[in-house]
Order: sequence, then C-alpha cells, then structure tokens
Amino acid sequence: MATQQYDYGMIGLGTMGRNLVYNMCDHGFSVAGFDKDNTKVDALVREGEGKPVYGAHDLKNFFAVLKSPKVVMLLVPAGAPVDAVVAELKPFLSVADLVIDCGNSHYTDTDRRIAQLAEQQIRFMGVGISGGEYGARHGPSIMPGGMHEAYMQVAPVLEAIAAQVNGAPCVTYLGKGSAGHYVKMVHNGIEYGMMQAIAEIYNLLKTGVGMNNERLHEVFSKWNEGRLQSYLVGITADIFAQKDTETGNDLVDMILDTSEQNGTGQWTSQSAMDMHLPIPTIDAAVSARDLSALKDERQIAQKIFDWRGRGATFKGSEGELVNWLEDALYFTMITTYAQGMYLMQRASVVNNYGLKPEDVARIWRGGCIIRSALLEDIMQAYQNDVDLVNLMLDKEIALKLEQSQDGFRLALKEGISIGVAMPVMSAALAYYDGYRNGSSPANLIQAQRDYFGAHTYKRTDKTGSFHTQWNQKTN
Amino acid sequence: MATQQYDYGMIGLGTMGRNLVYNMCDHGFSVAGFDKDNTKVDALVREGEGKPVYGAHDLKNFFAVLKSPKVVMLLVPAGAPVDAVVAELKPFLSVADLVIDCGNSHYTDTDRRIAQLAEQQIRFMGVGISGGEYGARHGPSIMPGGMHEAYMQVAPVLEAIAAQVNGAPCVTYLGKGSAGHYVKMVHNGIEYGMMQAIAEIYNLLKTGVGMNNERLHEVFSKWNEGRLQSYLVGITADIFAQKDTETGNDLVDMILDTSEQNGTGQWTSQSAMDMHLPIPTIDAAVSARDLSALKDERQIAQKIFDWRGRGATFKGSEGELVNWLEDALYFTMITTYAQGMYLMQRASVVNNYGLKPEDVARIWRGGCIIRSALLEDIMQAYQNDVDLVNLMLDKEIALKLEQSQDGFRLALKEGISIGVAMPVMSAALAYYDGYRNGSSPANLIQAQRDYFGAHTYKRTDKTGSFHTQWNQKTN
Repeated sequence: MATQQYDYGMIGLGTMGRNLVYNMCDHGFSVAGFDKDNTKVDALVREGEGKPVYGAHDLKNFFAVLKSPKVVMLLVPAGAPVDAVVAELKPFLSVADLVIDCGNSHYTDTDRRIAQLAEQQIRFMGVGISGGEYGARHGPSIMPGGMHEAYMQVAPVLEAIAAQVNGAPCVTYLGKGSAGHYVKMVHNGIEYGMMQAIAEIYNLLKTGVGMNNERLHEVFSKWNEGRLQSYLVGITADIFAQKDTETGNDLVDMILDTSEQNGTGQWTSQSAMDMHLPIPTIDAAVSARDLSALKDERQIAQKIFDWRGRGATFKGSEGELVNWLEDALYFTMITTYAQGMYLMQRASVVNNYGLKPEDVARIWRGGCIIRSALLEDIMQAYQNDVDLVNLMLDKEIALKLEQSQDGFRLALKEGISIGVAMPVMSAALAYYDGYRNGSSPANLIQAQRDYFGAHTYKRTDKTGSFHTQWNQKTN
Repeated sequence: MATQQYDYGMIGLGTMGRNLVYNMCDHGFSVAGFDKDNTKVDALVREGEGKPVYGAHDLKNFFAVLKSPKVVMLLVPAGAPVDAVVAELKPFLSVADLVIDCGNSHYTDTDRRIAQLAEQQIRFMGVGISGGEYGARHGPSIMPGGMHEAYMQVAPVLEAIAAQVNGAPCVTYLGKGSAGHYVKMVHNGIEYGMMQAIAEIYNLLKTGVGMNNERLHEVFSKWNEGRLQSYLVGITADIFAQKDTETGNDLVDMILDTSEQNGTGQWTSQSAMDMHLPIPTIDAAVSARDLSALKDERQIAQKIFDWRGRGATFKGSEGELVNWLEDALYFTMITTYAQGMYLMQRASVVNNYGLKPEDVARIWRGGCIIRSALLEDIMQAYQNDVDLVNLMLDKEIALKLEQSQDGFRLALKEGISIGVAMPVMSAALAYYDGYRNGSSPANLIQAQRDYFGAHTYKRTDKTGSFHTQWNQKTN
C-alpha cells in the first residue's frame, strides 16, 4: 500500500489515459491510475517505471492515495460507461472535489452530469482532448469547459501537458457548462470534413488518373510544405509511404475501405440541424462514412453500373490537375473551418458558453488533429473582428477563397466527368456559392409551400405574412 | 344541443382539419369538430351548411355527440400541443375508443403516446396525411400506422376520403407502432429534396442564362408532360404563371427568398444519421433551407464576393441546357426516392414496422406532394423484388439513371462554372458515384484513424482488426 499521496487521479488507462498520465509525470505531477482491467493498471506501473505513477486495483485504494481536494480525470468511452463510473465515484467524493471528463462525451450528457454532481456540491468539468496517442503523450490540444474557478485549479497541469505553439500552451478556459465538449465535438466534425476531402482527392488521383502511392506520397509531402501545411496532410503523406510488413505491398492498399466513426461527426451535424444552421460539408462527410460502410452493396452496384460513366480519361497534364486539387483542398478546408466556427459561435449564444472564436483557433494551432497553418489566419481573422459573422467574410480569408476558386471549380468538373464521388468538396463549393448569393431561389420554395399547404410567404416589398389563392391548374 | 350522434370527431379545425371533415362528409360520414378557437368551430358549421357536420364549443359537448366506440382524429401542431390535447381527452375516453393523430408528429412521440394510452387500454394511431389543403379536401395520400385491428375499424372512411389512382385508394395499412408517421416523415424528406432540386434548376436558368418567368413556365409545363410528370413540377409551372394582384408583377418575384420548414426534413436526416444510413440529398436540402434563412448574411457576402465567379456566360444553346436539366432533375428525383425508400426499409427492420416498400410507393402515386409518374416504376421495382436492397439496383431504374447521367453531369458542370449553388443535385450525383464504387477511398480514412488514434483497421486479405506502428514523420 502506498503511503505517498498523488496529485491527480486517472480513471481509464487505455491509449489516451495512459499516455496522458505519463505526460503529466514528465511535467512533475504525480498520478494515481485506476482501470477495471487489472492488466492495464499493471502495464501503467511497469511501463512507467521511474515516474511518479501509482496503479490502484480498486477505487477505495485509488481514493486513499489521492491528495485532497481530489481531482479525478476520466478517460472512459462516452455514454453509459461515463455514467457508470460517475455513479461508482460518488460515494468517495466530497465537497470541493473535482471530476474531469476528458473523453468524447456528448455535450448534453456533460450538462446533465454537471447538474447531477452539483446537487452534492461536487464540481464536474467536460474537457475535450485532441491529438490521438502521440498528442496525449507529448502535448495535445485541450479544450476545457465548466466553472472558471475549477479550471483555474487545474490550469497549471493542463498548461504544462498541452502542446505549445510559440511558447503558448494549446489550452485555455473556453466557457461555461459543456463548452469544452461542444468545441471538441465541432473539432471532430471539421476533422471528418477534412479527412473526407483528402480521401476524395486520393480517389480522383488514383482512380481518375492512375497515380501510384509513391507519387501520392510526393504530392502530399509537397503540399504539406505550403499553404496546405497541416497534420492531416502530413500523415497522409506518411501513410502512402508505409509498407505492409506482411505482404510487402503498400499498406494503404491492404486496408479495407469501410470507415468507422465514434459518433462525434454525426452529433455535430445533428446539433447544427437542431439550431437550423447549415454545415453541409460536415454533413456530407458523415454520410460519406455511412456510405463507405455499405461495402457489400457497393460491390453489387459496381457490377451493374461500372460499364458507364467511370474512367473518362483526363485530358490535361497531371501536374495541372494536382495544382487544381491543391486549390480544391485549400478551399474546402477554409469552408469547413468556417462552418465549424459558425456553428460554435451560435451554439455559444444558445447555450450561454461565452466562447471566444479567437481562443478556439489559438488552441487548435498545435497538438490536435485539425491543426494547420490556416489556423494562424483564422485566429488573426477573429482577432481583427471578434464579432466576425462568418469566417469567409474576413478580408484575407475571402481573398484566399477568391484565389483558389478557379482551380477548385476545374477540379470538381474533372471529377464529375470522370465519375469519382466528391460529396464533401461539392458541398463546400455549394456552401460558398449559396452563402454569397444575396438572392437565393428559396422564393420558389416558399411559393410551393404556400401553393400546396397555405404556409404563407413573406414579400420583398413589405413586411408581414401573405397567402395567395393560387391559380391551381395542377391537381 | 345536438341529439344526432356523429361517426367521427375531429379536433383541430385549421386548414387541414376543416378540409378533411368536409371530405368525410362528402363520402357520407358525419363528423363533429372541436377547436379551442371558437371562430374556427363556427366557420366549420357555417361553411359546411348542408353537410352532416357539427361544431362543438367544448370537449364535453364534443364527446356527448360522438357515437361509441369513439373515434377522435387530431389535426393539431406537432409536439407539445398534441400532448396537451391528449391529456385533455383522457378523462373522456374509454376502453375501445380510438385516437388518431393525423398531424406531422415525430415518430418517437407517437411511439411514446401509443404506450401511454395503452396503459388505459385506449388505442392510438399515428397517421400521416399528405396533399396539402386541396388534398385534404378532395383526396390525400394517407399513411396509417398502429394496431392492425384499429386500422381495420377506420379503413372504410380512410379509403373513402383518400385519393384514388386507377380505382385504388391511396391508403393502406403500413405497419405497427409509428410506421405511419415514419413514412410521412420520409415523404417530407423526399419532398425537401425534390423542391430544392427544382429551386436549383430555377436558379441556374434564371441567374445563369437569364430565363424569364414566362419561359420558365413553358419549360416546367413541357417537362410535366413527360417523364418528369409530377405534382411539384406541375405546380412550379403554375407558379411561374401567377401574377401578383397588387403590383401586377410576376408573384414569384415578389416573394422573399427565405424558406421555412416544419422540421420533418431535419428529422429525416437526423434519424438516418442515428442509423448510420446515407441520405445526403435530403441532408443537403435541409441545410439549403437553413442557408436560405440567412438572408442578411447572404446579402453582405454578395457584396464581398459578387465580383468573382458568378455570371460566366453559358456558351451553348438554351435548349441544350434545358435538356440537360431535364436529365438532372430526373436523376435527382430517382436518387432522392432511392434514399428515402432505403431509409424506410432499414427503419422498418430496426423499429419492427413490417413496412412493404411496394405499398408505400403505391399510396404515394396519388394525393400527396411527391406523387409522380416515377412512382409507378418504383412500385413496379418493389413488386418485382420485394427485397430490393436499393431502388437504384432495379434493372429498369438503373437504365433510367444510365440514360440521364450524361446530361446531368453536363448540367452540373455548367452550374459550377457559372457559380450557381447546386447542393442537392451535387449530392445526388455524389451519392450515385459513391454507391456504385466498389472500392471507395475509405481505406485512407481508416489508415488516418489508425495513425493518429490507434483505432485499428480491417484488411482486404484477412479478417480481424489490425493496428500498425506507423512510421510517424509528422508530429
């Protein structure tokens, strides 16, 4: 039995939890870990030899070694497991203790748990963490939400373990309640959009013009040195260079094309729809993942349809297409960030978070999966105008869109000719073309609704709601 | 006080409720109506002079004049109003009575209410009705769900008032529980998709090639005589011919371009996402409506962006573009129906409805907003193969897609060049191109997920889940 007292507790010692523990230890904090799986507890201690780490085999022991007030971090799967752990913790918790959910919990669950534990005067924070395995170990982006004074209590450890960009930690207090988990959810929605855009470009270059993995590695490596510089473009370059140790083939070719998901992209789309806010690029990324899962059906469909539409030969030079696609990805990345920031800004008002978009962009610049050179520009845009209505309306960002749209349009048209699906990139262009259209065709939709359902419409020349007795020749 | 006893009761005497009452009266059924708004009760009686109709000013009187077992139909706004009415009805209801919610209730609410009233042995049905004001009066499409024996009790009146196609009523028992409201929800999702597709074509012809309303009327009128024959294409033709009585202008030009919605499209998308089923065309229609509502922002954006991208001149003949767009709308309609049918088929399994897709197509052929010549082919496809996995895989439907895809691709490319937003049509093509792709680029997404999050992947050459220690140059 340990006699030492530990600074923090970590419950859930999977990939993320274990690496966060070691990260904290590296910065001089001592941590006690617990997991229902004893082998994970033992592994934590064994692999953490020499570090100020302790492995508890039951909750009683776990709480016995924690300093008071106790700060317990959770890294367990979202949903019922979090509720189960919280219920088990309750008997051990006292006033002034702090529970920090570091997983991908749905923000409404976080609000519910905050209220639930507040009844016992126990504080609960929802903190999003992005960076995957490597980030957890060496510096993630950390998105904390909840009571400000609770954040201040743990700010030293969070700032120490976070990724650093130009000496500033990729963590800051984001806002009240479930602000942290909301921001993390939207982060993941943007991640879905960017990953699908990259996949569409891969598909166009591979299927459309027969580019091999070696060349794809070169293209993404080169892109990663320019305006597309980003974690996702970088790891895509790495992926195309990876060999399969078993077959000697390129590993990417041995991986089954059915993408999975943890639900955060879907939640982002559903939350936006609840608030009637358009984030079509993220929606399209979610449905693209769902479509990819229908592998059996796609193979049947390919037999029926493959004889038509696919494989039109690209007439131009490969280098030209690569340049267009660089524009396409840049444009899509900007509009995807724009939709995510837009959603967060409105959600902050609705949910009373008090989010500052500039802060979000700042802490996303390092450690997280969607970090990119673009986030410097995005941060700057919100620094210039804290009330910026839509990122696309910032002068510098608008210029980037303007300068990349021609190549983007050319790339999309090639994909349409060749027959390669580009749901996310198409949605990105349509979002832009729709957003900059002061006079949309929705007047026709309102006319139709009034025609068949007497739903009334508004007029351009005066206020009020109007209904017309339409000259109904169609019935 | 009436001494006569009435066959049915109707609560909620707005546009839909009042017209359904008269429709029932026309077919020999007597109906008592109630509404909290006394003026609506009085209007029902006044305008229904000579019909077997009664207006009740309170619920006690309403129930006093109903024959037993009492059958009460509700046509009140979805959500809390339905719960409020159900709570008020309860004291008046007895075992064997039947409450029929004919509104656009969310299907999960319907399941909840069925269970709630079952506790008192009162039967509750969720019945979707489509056809708008005219349909309610002269023959809607009716989508009933719930207990089969409850349906059999009201089948005579529902079959009498429904639209008729070739002598068959556009109503049939669809399935258990909330089956009726689920089908109606998906009906509306498809409606959103088709309306937005028509709006995109209008935008391209108006903004892109300067077509006036007179010519638009001609185009849609002509289309409505061919394979595009449908209620929505027909009323669109009517709309372009309608004059504004106040200004003498074409009315469509006087209507504000901010479309509204009752939520059913959004519910369709959210339900599909919950089940991880792709319906990207409907998703895009929902977000397009949300985007249209941002009129102020769109006007600001237009000032920033209008100097670029919009207004490239169409080089070909107008007639050629119209032909391509006929292909485009046909293709989009087919894929939108396909997504909706696909969603319903899977939801039927998950929710244990017992839906028959053929029946749904049959009762949609008349009376409802999405009725079209295509539904004959769709019904035929499911008659030929009751287990058809995706409508697009039917031989005849596949041929239609094949024959219209070239024009569709040309139309989309024009829109992209011109700078007209086409979110729904782009999504329709991407759905098709993605669905017929046996080898999607999702292998790259799985590689990325394993690279940054150790989420594992499946392989093409053997079963199981695998994780690679990626050669991480990017961090």
